[in-house]
Amino acid sequence: MISYDDARAYVLSLIEALEPRPLALDDALGCVIAQRVVATEAVPGFANSSMDGYALRADDTRDVPTRLRVTGTTLAGAAPSAPVAPGEARRIMTGAPLPPGADSVFMIEEVDVLDEGRVVVIPRRASRGQNVRQPGEDVTPGDVLVVDGDVLSPPRIGVLASQGVRTVLARPRPRVGVVSTGNELITEGGPLGPGQIRDTNGPLVRALLRDAGFQAVDLGVALDDEAATTALLAAGAATCDAVISTGGVSVGDVDHVKAAITHLGGERSRWMQIALRPGKPFAVGVTAASTPLFGLPGNPVSTRVSFELFVRPALRRMAGHRDVDRPRVRAVLDVALTRNHDQKLHVLHARVVVGDDGRWHVVELVRHGSHLLHAIARANAMLLYPEGPDLATGDEVEVLLLSMESLNGEVE
Amino acid sequence: MISYDDARAYVLSLIEALEPRPLALDDALGCVIAQRVVATEAVPGFANSSMDGYALRADDTRDVPTRLRVTGTTLAGAAPSAPVAPGEARRIMTGAPLPPGADSVFMIEEVDVLDEGRVVVIPRRASRGQNVRQPGEDVTPGDVLVVDGDVLSPPRIGVLASQGVRTVLARPRPRVGVVSTGNELITEGGPLGPGQIRDTNGPLVRALLRDAGFQAVDLGVALDDEAATTALLAAGAATCDAVISTGGVSVGDVDHVKAAITHLGGERSRWMQIALRPGKPFAVGVTAASTPLFGLPGNPVSTRVSFELFVRPALRRMAGHRDVDRPRVRAVLDVALTRNHDQKLHVLHARVVVGDDGRWHVVELVRHGSHLLHAIARANAMLLYPEGPDLATGDEVEVLLLSMESLNGEVE
Repeated sequence: MISYDDARAYVLSLIEALEPRPLALDDALGCVIAQRVVATEAVPGFANSSMDGYALRADDTRDVPTRLRVTGTTLAGAAPSAPVAPGEARRIMTGAPLPPGADSVFMIEEVDVLDEGRVVVIPRRASRGQNVRQPGEDVTPGDVLVVDGDVLSPPRIGVLASQGVRTVLARPRPRVGVVSTGNELITEGGPLGPGQIRDTNGPLVRALLRDAGFQAVDLGVALDDEAATTALLAAGAATCDAVISTGGVSVGDVDHVKAAITHLGGERSRWMQIALRPGKPFAVGVTAASTPLFGLPGNPVSTRVSFELFVRPALRRMAGHRDVDRPRVRAVLDVALTRNHDQKLHVLHARVVVGDDGRWHVVELVRHGSHLLHAIARANAMLLYPEGPDLATGDEVEVLLLSMESLNGEVE
Repeated sequence: MISYDDARAYVLSLIEALEPRPLALDDALGCVIAQRVVATEAVPGFANSSMDGYALRADDTRDVPTRLRVTGTTLAGAAPSAPVAPGEARRIMTGAPLPPGADSVFMIEEVDVLDEGRVVVIPRRASRGQNVRQPGEDVTPGDVLVVDGDVLSPPRIGVLASQGVRTVLARPRPRVGVVSTGNELITEGGPLGPGQIRDTNGPLVRALLRDAGFQAVDLGVALDDEAATTALLAAGAATCDAVISTGGVSVGDVDHVKAAITHLGGERSRWMQIALRPGKPFAVGVTAASTPLFGLPGNPVSTRVSFELFVRPALRRMAGHRDVDRPRVRAVLDVALTRNHDQKLHVLHARVVVGDDGRWHVVELVRHGSHLLHAIARANAMLLYPEGPDLATGDEVEVLLLSMESLNGEVE
């Protein structure tokens, strides 16, 4: 038996970040950038109006109200226009370049317009620079916009677009092959034969991958044959960034995934019995080409737990994330927790809410064997707890947050 | 001026959920199902072993240790095998059907095997049913698995797959067209001409849409011409579930989006001046075919705020979500907040963390004009506050959580 911490550290020790590659900005959302981007252009690139109004010389408004002669209109996108001379104003739209001579903009809602638009009455003094965006006010050439390791969030995508960046050097989303194992599995609809069951883990793992922002590739089912299992994992490793299989990692006669991963992973492969419930058996290895292979247990809830605790962090490391973990928060138990005495770390799905007191509350513990998948659909957190005395309501525990949805109410 | 609450209520009043359509289970992750799915098959479908071990009759273990004759091996996926008679055992693998006659399984790690596998020594009494999964233990025909309105999370995808469901009736992810407006915009790389700026809002809004789980369609730039703007919005509305445009909704001479939305939306269209900062101007309407059109302000930070407060909830309603809002939590201010006195609701981006005390803390307020996009990249929350007295550190505020990442540390 190996501890959860040691198992996790071993898995992560095998993982390297994927090589960065050029990605179109529109395809890079959520990816981790692998370059420092320094601004080359000032934003704004030229003095422009932040309002719809009248561009004028502040000195002309010393004695107000005052009348200025309107010499036309400047629209956004216009080329530089004739100067604004003393006694003149120019009607100007938001984003339009400030005409030479003008130093401020008076907003359109506050002026009176006379003589069919040829004269504007300015009611108050203007201060120099008012309603003018100065060149470089937002971004100056040389400003560091993003650094290696930053996640390309929507605002960062916007910032890069504002500099004319169309392609970034970033780590791609891992493309992960998914294999289910077992002669008993049926992947299509239609009736089941004797002893057959439907493949649950393939769709489940593909959904878990997509939910975590990775790409999922359906590699199908490996029958209970060591050579066939090895061949399918090898073929997956040749075309994917990582391969996940479910089932075939326990101590049974046909648990060929252990052997397949050992065969493909050599010295860097390991079959582990982890002091964790559910999620005891786990196999991991990396091919000669450094492609990780993960062998997860076959019970769907065990699969989900192993994915969450080992595979998701590993794939996030492949994707280049500095922070590979779910957020952890301390929560108040609103329900009692009976603990076990088997020297294992237990994992329980839970539902947490943010209470009116501003604190996290565990309002439901999802009791289940390692096989009751539909019972965990209401959960939005996981509770990891070692053996120890039972906990009462009001005690505190640490939980991993799996979802930010529905923290204020019912899980949808 | 209209209040934020009234503006939001009006926008949401225009929105109907998209019609459900059949979606492949693999494509339905995150979608809202529009049907009730009742189990038609028991899971498990037959009594099977939850362990690798020996299937036997519990009555044969009254006097232990006892020797049983091993009559072969039953693998998962096998058809029903010969009965286990008194005095016999059958080697059995996880998931394999329990042979007739047997009523329990003894785990492989605890037995001794003699005579080249033909005899097994059972060291302790077995209780009837131990390590056996009974038919229907997880799911019984008639069990309600999901109901109309449930979000298809990975566990629910797994549950449906376990019933042989390959297609679900669900509301699709809204497909949303994105238009930027203005003669000054350049969408490609290369040098800028006089008065030109780069289109930031197009890439920003497409990223915001994808980040929220929707599909984004780039409809390009509408030049400052009312007919051209109307035509582009109409073309987008004909091929998309909704259209978002940015810019052209203020009081300027070329703010044609207002007119275009009024033209296309008729009586149900509305141009609003909202008592909100940033995010004052907003236009909304629905076409005769009930396709929503959203006209957002042109400053990128205003665009982001308007998207977050009005468009994202509306699109979530289109997608069928019962809960259209971000989670709201009460947080302790670790920094002071100077409030304004302009009768507007102010929106500030903020960074919040979960402290060691288990509570939320606002550790940074992102000060900005409505145009400083790169300043908000570090934020993971939004603070909405009406006018009122200044707040000190230690005071509580309510925040909207924008991201679950990095709640424990630095934003990546």
